[in-house]
Amino acid sequence: MSSSLSSVYSPSGSVDAAAPGVSHGHGAAADGVLKRCRELVRPALVEAVGRLHPWTGEMAAYALGWSDAVGTPDPGGSEGKGVRQALAVLGAEAVGADGGAAVAGAVAVELVHTFSLLHDDIMDGDHLRRQRPAVWKAYGTGPAVLAGDALLALAVQYLTETPGPWTGEAVRRLGETLNALVHGQAEDLRFERRPWSGTGAVDPGQYRSMAEGKTGALLGCAIALGAVLGGAPAGSVAVLEQAGRHLGVAFQAVDDLLGIWGEPAVTGKPVHGDLRLRKKTYPILAALAGDGPAARELAVLLEAPGLLDGAAAAHAAMLVEEAGGRAAAREEARRHLDAARHGLRGVSLTRGAVEDLDALFVCLLDRSW
Amino acid sequence: MSSSLSSVYSPSGSVDAAAPGVSHGHGAAADGVLKRCRELVRPALVEAVGRLHPWTGEMAAYALGWSDAVGTPDPGGSEGKGVRQALAVLGAEAVGADGGAAVAGAVAVELVHTFSLLHDDIMDGDHLRRQRPAVWKAYGTGPAVLAGDALLALAVQYLTETPGPWTGEAVRRLGETLNALVHGQAEDLRFERRPWSGTGAVDPGQYRSMAEGKTGALLGCAIALGAVLGGAPAGSVAVLEQAGRHLGVAFQAVDDLLGIWGEPAVTGKPVHGDLRLRKKTYPILAALAGDGPAARELAVLLEAPGLLDGAAAAHAAMLVEEAGGRAAAREEARRHLDAARHGLRGVSLTRGAVEDLDALFVCLLDRSW
Repeated sequence: MSSSLSSVYSPSGSVDAAAPGVSHGHGAAADGVLKRCRELVRPALVEAVGRLHPWTGEMAAYALGWSDAVGTPDPGGSEGKGVRQALAVLGAEAVGADGGAAVAGAVAVELVHTFSLLHDDIMDGDHLRRQRPAVWKAYGTGPAVLAGDALLALAVQYLTETPGPWTGEAVRRLGETLNALVHGQAEDLRFERRPWSGTGAVDPGQYRSMAEGKTGALLGCAIALGAVLGGAPAGSVAVLEQAGRHLGVAFQAVDDLLGIWGEPAVTGKPVHGDLRLRKKTYPILAALAGDGPAARELAVLLEAPGLLDGAAAAHAAMLVEEAGGRAAAREEARRHLDAARHGLRGVSLTRGAVEDLDALFVCLLDRSW
Repeated sequence: MSSSLSSVYSPSGSVDAAAPGVSHGHGAAADGVLKRCRELVRPALVEAVGRLHPWTGEMAAYALGWSDAVGTPDPGGSEGKGVRQALAVLGAEAVGADGGAAVAGAVAVELVHTFSLLHDDIMDGDHLRRQRPAVWKAYGTGPAVLAGDALLALAVQYLTETPGPWTGEAVRRLGETLNALVHGQAEDLRFERRPWSGTGAVDPGQYRSMAEGKTGALLGCAIALGAVLGGAPAGSVAVLEQAGRHLGVAFQAVDDLLGIWGEPAVTGKPVHGDLRLRKKTYPILAALAGDGPAARELAVLLEAPGLLDGAAAAHAAMLVEEAGGRAAAREEARRHLDAARHGLRGVSLTRGAVEDLDALFVCLLDRSW
């Protein structure tokens, strides 16, 4: 039931197997890159979070995985990988600057990411985040709204107070990204109310556009902010930003595959979870966009009211696969990963940073699906 | 049971009765100023809100009082006075610039204000806003969180995209203000959990500091953004900002007086409402800070669990008054209004704009209390 990007990529994948970072070692390489970037950014992130009101600061530390819900430090805990801060650092390094130039941008995108997880969990009614109660479950809805607002406000303030000639441009990009992010989330929530088939149904292209806002915009912003703060010319910034956006779309497609076929032990979610919850995700929408018998049967199943039980969800998963939805989502992930990696070779960038980015891109999508 | 600032100010008030704008006509003058500023800012504000996702845009239009909860235009409706946008416009005019220079700042502060109302109503559990269901009651909590996020993101984006040499400074101030606002809201929510008396009780000074963040910061930012975008020197900006902050503290004190002694027909809230809900507001905290028998009896009453019924709330209101809380809150309002008005005379500013600001300041506090 599972494959991995490395097996897709080598030997039959569409990307040159000799591309930098694509090897059996890329997972370890990416882990090293992530760790290096987290260590570079950590002092500034800690200092920034330390500016918050003690109460919102406690919630922020919990959301960041630094402490438990009573404020006790949790060093081994549930910290995220820090993908966005790493992209910012690598964005600066890719344009020949020191990674340190990107730190303010890295802090800002990490704060924005944490804000969005906090508020999205409220909106989506998700009780768990990284195997722990979501902030709104641990602290209450009102406090979680406040903590999200505090993180967002801090992100803006932190970036605006960064000295240097590129601050204005960086802040402008952050503002644009915040809007894209919220717009994507609005689209996603509205999809829930649209029909599964017929007029008004969500087509895969609309889903991709939502994913580009909800997931791609901040990844693109992260890498672009690094490049901007590293003093890059507009052309390089645009290429790097676009690579980050493609990465986001690919990442979302993989997430959607995992939402149906992921191993519960790995994802922490029930098998066929997105089907049980009738989430409109890429594999399902792509399956429904076909007009074969499997697509029609799937639509009927999804249009019936209520939750799907385990057997019905398993049957629906089989129909999604039969109607080509799983293959389409894999192709979506592969295509956007290719585009992201291809972009990195389109402009003159620092080789080491490009290798790190490439390892990170591949590793992020190399989960079992 | 009621007095008004004009009666406080004339003839016995501490502000010169001949000060510009302090006359029986200042209410009409202020209404005219507010209307002029709303008309100046309106096209840009409509354009900005029009950039939102249609769904968040609908909620924003509802929150702004432009439409009802099904999106039907509501022209006579529940629009706010637009105090913050007016302060921005007058801030520019006060430093000799055209009010039009402040429009981007005016849009930003109005959007931030609307964001804060939306999220604060969720956190405070307030069902009504301007006599209509709050956004979270009309649309649901999740959508209201999203709409608030969208307004905040739009405010940042809108200001960052304003061309001109002062954008960076304006955005920096907005970021700082967002943090002060959220910090003030965090303090306010935390006050709820603190005791009424003894160690850990909230003293009036802490309350004032909360009000300066929650209410004063955005009023100060509004007027400062106008001045900044009008090209003012730092000294004038600082004076105007400080005047706006004082106005905010005074405004909060008046609001607190109305929360106990306001006419239900005017406030839309039950008589002695803040006492029934055991809100820690200035008059109550000032009363408790005394050590007479009324203060002690009040503390016992407030420390008992549960809501206060009508008779108990009326008795509590009497105790607050007896312990000097009402007089202290009036003095707080008067003192900060004096300071705000005094500031306007401390630097060289355009006379007409100062008269308008003065009329606005006085009018805002001239509600029956």
